[in-house]
Amino acid sequence: MTKTYFPNVNKIPFVGTGDLKSGFGYHYYDADKVVGGKKMRDWMRFSVAYWHTFGQQLDDIFGAGTAIRPWNGLTGMDLAKARVEASFEFYDKMGVDFFCFHDRDVAPEGDTLRETNKNLDEITDMFVEYQKQTGMKVLWNTANMFTNPRFVSGAASSPFADIFAYAAAQVKEGLDTAKKVGSSNYVFWGGREGYESLLNTDMKREQEHLAKFFHMAADYAKEIGYEGQLLLEPKPKEPMMHQYDFDAATTIAFMKTYGLDGTYKLNLEGNHANLAGHSYQHEIRTAREAGLLGSLDANQGDKLIGWDLDEFPSDLYEATLAMYEVVENGGLGKGGLNFDAKPRRSSFTPEDMFYAHIVGMDTFSAGLLVALRLKEDKVFENFVADRYSSYDAGLGADIEAGKVDFKTLNDYAIDKPQSVLLAATKSGRIEELKDTLNHYIIDTLK
Amino acid sequence: MTKTYFPNVNKIPFVGTGDLKSGFGYHYYDADKVVGGKKMRDWMRFSVAYWHTFGQQLDDIFGAGTAIRPWNGLTGMDLAKARVEASFEFYDKMGVDFFCFHDRDVAPEGDTLRETNKNLDEITDMFVEYQKQTGMKVLWNTANMFTNPRFVSGAASSPFADIFAYAAAQVKEGLDTAKKVGSSNYVFWGGREGYESLLNTDMKREQEHLAKFFHMAADYAKEIGYEGQLLLEPKPKEPMMHQYDFDAATTIAFMKTYGLDGTYKLNLEGNHANLAGHSYQHEIRTAREAGLLGSLDANQGDKLIGWDLDEFPSDLYEATLAMYEVVENGGLGKGGLNFDAKPRRSSFTPEDMFYAHIVGMDTFSAGLLVALRLKEDKVFENFVADRYSSYDAGLGADIEAGKVDFKTLNDYAIDKPQSVLLAATKSGRIEELKDTLNHYIIDTLK
Amino acid sequence: MTKTYFPNVNKIPFVGTGDLKSGFGYHYYDADKVVGGKKMRDWMRFSVAYWHTFGQQLDDIFGAGTAIRPWNGLTGMDLAKARVEASFEFYDKMGVDFFCFHDRDVAPEGDTLRETNKNLDEITDMFVEYQKQTGMKVLWNTANMFTNPRFVSGAASSPFADIFAYAAAQVKEGLDTAKKVGSSNYVFWGGREGYESLLNTDMKREQEHLAKFFHMAADYAKEIGYEGQLLLEPKPKEPMMHQYDFDAATTIAFMKTYGLDGTYKLNLEGNHANLAGHSYQHEIRTAREAGLLGSLDANQGDKLIGWDLDEFPSDLYEATLAMYEVVENGGLGKGGLNFDAKPRRSSFTPEDMFYAHIVGMDTFSAGLLVALRLKEDKVFENFVADRYSSYDAGLGADIEAGKVDFKTLNDYAIDKPQSVLLAATKSGRIEELKDTLNHYIIDTLK
Amino acid sequence: MTKTYFPNVNKIPFVGTGDLKSGFGYHYYDADKVVGGKKMRDWMRFSVAYWHTFGQQLDDIFGAGTAIRPWNGLTGMDLAKARVEASFEFYDKMGVDFFCFHDRDVAPEGDTLRETNKNLDEITDMFVEYQKQTGMKVLWNTANMFTNPRFVSGAASSPFADIFAYAAAQVKEGLDTAKKVGSSNYVFWGGREGYESLLNTDMKREQEHLAKFFHMAADYAKEIGYEGQLLLEPKPKEPMMHQYDFDAATTIAFMKTYGLDGTYKLNLEGNHANLAGHSYQHEIRTAREAGLLGSLDANQGDKLIGWDLDEFPSDLYEATLAMYEVVENGGLGKGGLNFDAKPRRSSFTPEDMFYAHIVGMDTFSAGLLVALRLKEDKVFENFVADRYSSYDAGLGADIEAGKVDFKTLNDYAIDKPQSVLLAATKSGRIEELKDTLNHYIIDTLK
Ligand SMILES: [Co+2]
Ligand SMILES: [Co+2]
Ligand SMILES: [Co+2]
Ligand SMILES: [Co+2]
Ligand SMILES: [Co+2]
Ligand SMILES: [Co+2]
Ligand SMILES: [Co+2]
Ligand SMILES: [Co+2]
Repeated sequence: MTKTYFPNVNKIPFVGTGDLKSGFGYHYYDADKVVGGKKMRDWMRFSVAYWHTFGQQLDDIFGAGTAIRPWNGLTGMDLAKARVEASFEFYDKMGVDFFCFHDRDVAPEGDTLRETNKNLDEITDMFVEYQKQTGMKVLWNTANMFTNPRFVSGAASSPFADIFAYAAAQVKEGLDTAKKVGSSNYVFWGGREGYESLLNTDMKREQEHLAKFFHMAADYAKEIGYEGQLLLEPKPKEPMMHQYDFDAATTIAFMKTYGLDGTYKLNLEGNHANLAGHSYQHEIRTAREAGLLGSLDANQGDKLIGWDLDEFPSDLYEATLAMYEVVENGGLGKGGLNFDAKPRRSSFTPEDMFYAHIVGMDTFSAGLLVALRLKEDKVFENFVADRYSSYDAGLGADIEAGKVDFKTLNDYAIDKPQSVLLAATKSGRIEELKDTLNHYIIDTLK
Repeated sequence: MTKTYFPNVNKIPFVGTGDLKSGFGYHYYDADKVVGGKKMRDWMRFSVAYWHTFGQQLDDIFGAGTAIRPWNGLTGMDLAKARVEASFEFYDKMGVDFFCFHDRDVAPEGDTLRETNKNLDEITDMFVEYQKQTGMKVLWNTANMFTNPRFVSGAASSPFADIFAYAAAQVKEGLDTAKKVGSSNYVFWGGREGYESLLNTDMKREQEHLAKFFHMAADYAKEIGYEGQLLLEPKPKEPMMHQYDFDAATTIAFMKTYGLDGTYKLNLEGNHANLAGHSYQHEIRTAREAGLLGSLDANQGDKLIGWDLDEFPSDLYEATLAMYEVVENGGLGKGGLNFDAKPRRSSFTPEDMFYAHIVGMDTFSAGLLVALRLKEDKVFENFVADRYSSYDAGLGADIEAGKVDFKTLNDYAIDKPQSVLLAATKSGRIEELKDTLNHYIIDTLK
Repeated sequence: MTKTYFPNVNKIPFVGTGDLKSGFGYHYYDADKVVGGKKMRDWMRFSVAYWHTFGQQLDDIFGAGTAIRPWNGLTGMDLAKARVEASFEFYDKMGVDFFCFHDRDVAPEGDTLRETNKNLDEITDMFVEYQKQTGMKVLWNTANMFTNPRFVSGAASSPFADIFAYAAAQVKEGLDTAKKVGSSNYVFWGGREGYESLLNTDMKREQEHLAKFFHMAADYAKEIGYEGQLLLEPKPKEPMMHQYDFDAATTIAFMKTYGLDGTYKLNLEGNHANLAGHSYQHEIRTAREAGLLGSLDANQGDKLIGWDLDEFPSDLYEATLAMYEVVENGGLGKGGLNFDAKPRRSSFTPEDMFYAHIVGMDTFSAGLLVALRLKEDKVFENFVADRYSSYDAGLGADIEAGKVDFKTLNDYAIDKPQSVLLAATKSGRIEELKDTLNHYIIDTLK
Repeated sequence: MTKTYFPNVNKIPFVGTGDLKSGFGYHYYDADKVVGGKKMRDWMRFSVAYWHTFGQQLDDIFGAGTAIRPWNGLTGMDLAKARVEASFEFYDKMGVDFFCFHDRDVAPEGDTLRETNKNLDEITDMFVEYQKQTGMKVLWNTANMFTNPRFVSGAASSPFADIFAYAAAQVKEGLDTAKKVGSSNYVFWGGREGYESLLNTDMKREQEHLAKFFHMAADYAKEIGYEGQLLLEPKPKEPMMHQYDFDAATTIAFMKTYGLDGTYKLNLEGNHANLAGHSYQHEIRTAREAGLLGSLDANQGDKLIGWDLDEFPSDLYEATLAMYEVVENGGLGKGGLNFDAKPRRSSFTPEDMFYAHIVGMDTFSAGLLVALRLKEDKVFENFVADRYSSYDAGLGADIEAGKVDFKTLNDYAIDKPQSVLLAATKSGRIEELKDTLNHYIIDTLK
């Protein structure tokens, strides 16, 4: 790593809240500071997404890539290797501990999977070497089974058995790679596992194939002794009109239907939550309460926009409420916060790569600090405890304990007048709670 | 039934497709005509929704009711009784066989549930009497647990145990009523079973209460020997910001989590599907393939509008594709097609009640005819069979039979060149299929 | 005002940021504090919406009102008068200077407009009397032409000429009232001025009638010497499927088409902006840059929800960016910030009326402080100035001055290589700017 | 044209409605048949979009192109020329009379505009030659000012003056080309004329530049004697977060603000209408009633999907209602129906290019036939005439004639009782009209 790819940026230090203008310093992320009993770096387990940060050129469906990158001009394996070198310089300067990658982000395809795997192995050898030197870890890796035209109608849910076979072979290599590079998790985002039209789709047969595929993957992971978490990442639509892993609840239904809920957990993304009509907090809570919270793709969308923006997080409300769930969960375990995010196409300089990660890391760090403070003061906890207190004793406790039935409850309620029933309800105080939340954000982050 | 409530409208006859203008005659609904092996009336099991048709005045959040109804001016039990009389005249003139009702649609509340039940019982006595005279049946009844302020934060998921108890007592009466009037189904639409804000909500505790409630309801139904189907009706939002029964898949996850999937099935509504980001066909297919298709609320929304319109169905595409799933399902069993729909607020005359049901009944009748024709000619069936044929033998059959694993699949795929893989895929022909669908609609309905 | 309606709440003082829990004190709103050259009260001109705060009971389309109000139980003119008394106690305790009302909020209808006006006049006499005693002012009044069934298909755009006439008479009284109570503005929100279906609508004829109506209103205002601003309030849909004043731009097109842009300005609401697919800032900027910014309805929606929530504002981002436009505009002139907002249906106590206004007023006060700081430091101004600087001299200045045409520009550009063209573009730095915005919010509000 | 590019498809004949399966024949499009006083080909003026049909490979943001095309493997000018040859074979086989193209669709860019224009000129020479041989016409051409990174922040609204200059030079060539190839129209779709964030945008300055650009374009068109229509094409978002030409009404506001409404008209697209929250009919009617209907991009979206699908039209309702407006307009004049549409990515064979155009052409042909029948029978016309008849005489006529004011209207209305006012309103009969529409579709198309 003697060559410098980002000569204009030095290691990003923690600088605190002195300067109002954004710059190359963290206002909140102080990696080794212990808060709520853990180092910030261990609460977060921040990860850089290889595809967005090193793999893509900021193209969109209406335009070519705008990105100015130090590796522009290179091709093939030369490009792939330069990106590896640049990526480790980037991680080091950012002070992140993890990265995530798809197989196809890091090395080019050959004509056969054997040739493709050879390229991949050569690059992952480099990863292993650099990881040894630097201590960097892989949060997760995954297989890109949506870009190549062979996956036009899905991979494991493809109507074409040869494609299923190819996908299996590709994920086999993915799991081998996960073991090799020590990935904490292996992720399945169902790129084209869904349908474009019900007119030509056997949804049940496709879902059965998909389930079978996940079982085979888990079997293979076990066989090779891979101990990372296996994760499914929901998204409701795009590129397909309907994706089978629509949202957390839909994916849980699928997992329960096919006996996968003991083996797989969820990787949840903010922008995907919004596209499904949910807040990010909703999706995380749904998974957490089901015991299935695996890892987070930390990004944000624009709720007025109907496609996946993968913006870097900057919204302190969303980050606070996401981290609130993480704190409730006691942290993310093997999971982490992966920035499945890219700078806007108009933020095309190398410096923007740093600015974008800084706003993302500082926003979630701020969110963590506010969440811990809210928990410490039991702000919502006490309110909620009081709100549901009628279930802590008496009739409510009997209901929870299964000691009553419709007949006993009927006896209890049948002569209660409306005034008494109304008196049993309490204001939910949403406006007051939102005001309090504002105060906690400001006071904690000042 | 000597008094006439709708003197301007006679019994609606089947008239066929001669007249182009809509009028008081069916173009497609020929109740006793046998198609696809059943009478049209038995395929459809059309039901009038008491609340929309007799219970409401076409108010909206910005305006008072506009409806001109023969019972305007009456109040209390007089009003309730007049509506019963008028309703049976309406059923008779429409030629429908079923109706559906909430408890609070048909009789006014008293100060206590005991008083309320007394009113309800008096009206359901009338129902039973009129049913005997006419042969009319109840498709389903349900409990309104969302209008009264006591349900401000839910019923079975209320944070307040007294409200849970009241809800239990109310549903007890509802199930007793179901047995009394012979309802084919008993429905739970989770009016306010959801949350307004996660800041003050213990989602898990609420869902556990909800599940417990459904178990108690099933127990009570069993105890009294009620043999109708128990159904949950999904809706994603409105009135709550998030409703727990968001869509079919979410409700299936809930049912599986709490062991309710053997006891309950689904009642699916078109407009609710759209609000959740799905087509109606998607929701029906999801339920059908899970073996959980119970009954249908036949209405439509406007996908550009973000609230529940409950329009009468008029879209031949949606009706055809919904009925296609029904035909695939071999009919609806104990379920039926309930018009959970109201005329627009500007369609305020009694005549509009008839026009609205006519367009709804004819649209679904047309949909049935087209669906049967498509099935008969195996239009989509053959296409789908061919599309997935690689799973019928060889490698695909081995995959389905569980005879292969990642290693054998890897051996199969690892040296296949890209050209061979691409050759394994086939065009999905969506444009061709849509064109064919148009032709079937026109040719069948001419 | 000897009777006390809200005995549990005293006058809300400014308390500063000491206490983290929301309570009956302002953290940011310090009415007489001078910031940016004006008192906070004069920047804001906060107004209470009579309809939401005193007129309604927190019902929704699925449920009856839940509100516990000190006037519950009263009816008719007794109710109307009690509300007046309570309202002035509320204004006083909140420390707001303005209120807004519809004619139908404040007094009941009679059978004829003459009787209705008599009721209204009696109440507005009370207003005038209380205004004298307290110094309270009316920000705007308006006519409710959407609730009564006679307006089923619109008022000024009704297909029925008698309804147009009635609407004209009603607005005549409205303008007389505006003059009498000294309203700073008179507002037209087009409740049902739109269509439910194009199949039965002559859109052009309806819009011509609407324009004629606005001209007559302006003529009448002039005739009686009413000097307040006349304002149109856009909303895209709800209750109608399409409302003619869809958004700011659509309303500007309408105003320009019918020669109304010299006479009318815009009243813009946050939730309406979102329903039209825009941010609130977008709508305000559109109006501001057109010279048509009249007044603001300060509320917020939930962008994942498709109907009008009219939430009290609590989002510091939206409030900051809205106030940024207000500061750019040099204030709101005769306009103000009216809380067209209601507590959630589950926030049903009288105390919630206060909490809700507190979070609203503090959020916009906070927004003002941040906006002034951003302007003072020219944070966005300098960035924008630099970004467009190529238009300040040379070719860009010639373009703006109209000194060039396609031929001279062709000569300039035709031989420029791609590298030179790319070098003319600069990063938009969106991520950096969002990070900076976070810092300004925190640092200003600490 | 001796080489055959599409050997598997012959000229598509009119075959009528005999065969139910879609195939290589028109069921409704009978080009020279006279209906409603014109040949079908002249009502429609169908146009193939060069970019979708010959220029693209069916890639999407998550995947590479899947299209199997006879020119795959060629590059540079060889590719460009092969596409020209193939395109004319395609037009001939389809029997369409027009095509549309962007400059960058048809020929590759060089390093400078001079080199780029040279390539373009060479291809448009071929166009002219083939047009002479075949009689094919260009409906419109346009400039792609969104793909190249130089347009990252817009073209005429770019913050960078050099880019404005380049855009001007590019459109100069575009107008020269329009004259050369005889385009009936020249279209401006504002690809990146909008903003990504208001934080870094001077919206007014950008819009002033845009307006200036359109004036210069119109001046140059006049100068060279180009007599085609100049058209703006609205789209609300994508690729930019907000596009300045949001919808028809917004574009009309812009045109009126900057004095462009005498010079420019509108080109309206179905999918863009939906993305803006409107039906296609709404957008066309808005333009038609403003006298600004220029041309149509005939495609459809999926209203449950938030991005631009550009599907080929297959919905008989939308096509009928769009054509209803066209018939009301007396045809499209210089405009036409351009299929701004592509087969789905999974419809990747050359045959799908034909199937897709067939469903599009037949759907709009069907729509024309239904629309003419509806007009002939005055179905909606008579209903609307009756609905608004109170404005044809008496008070209503006085209102329209400007003979009344608020005072005279007040005198008229002030003593009318509620019963009389209600009696002045009539049911809108939406359900009945929708049923009638279904009957007309079926009966006309059988
Ligand atoms: Co994403
Ligand atoms: Co992701
Ligand atoms: Co509904
Ligand atoms: Co329903
Ligand atoms: Co509103
Ligand atoms: Co408002
Ligand atoms: Co488009
Ligand atoms: Co277009």
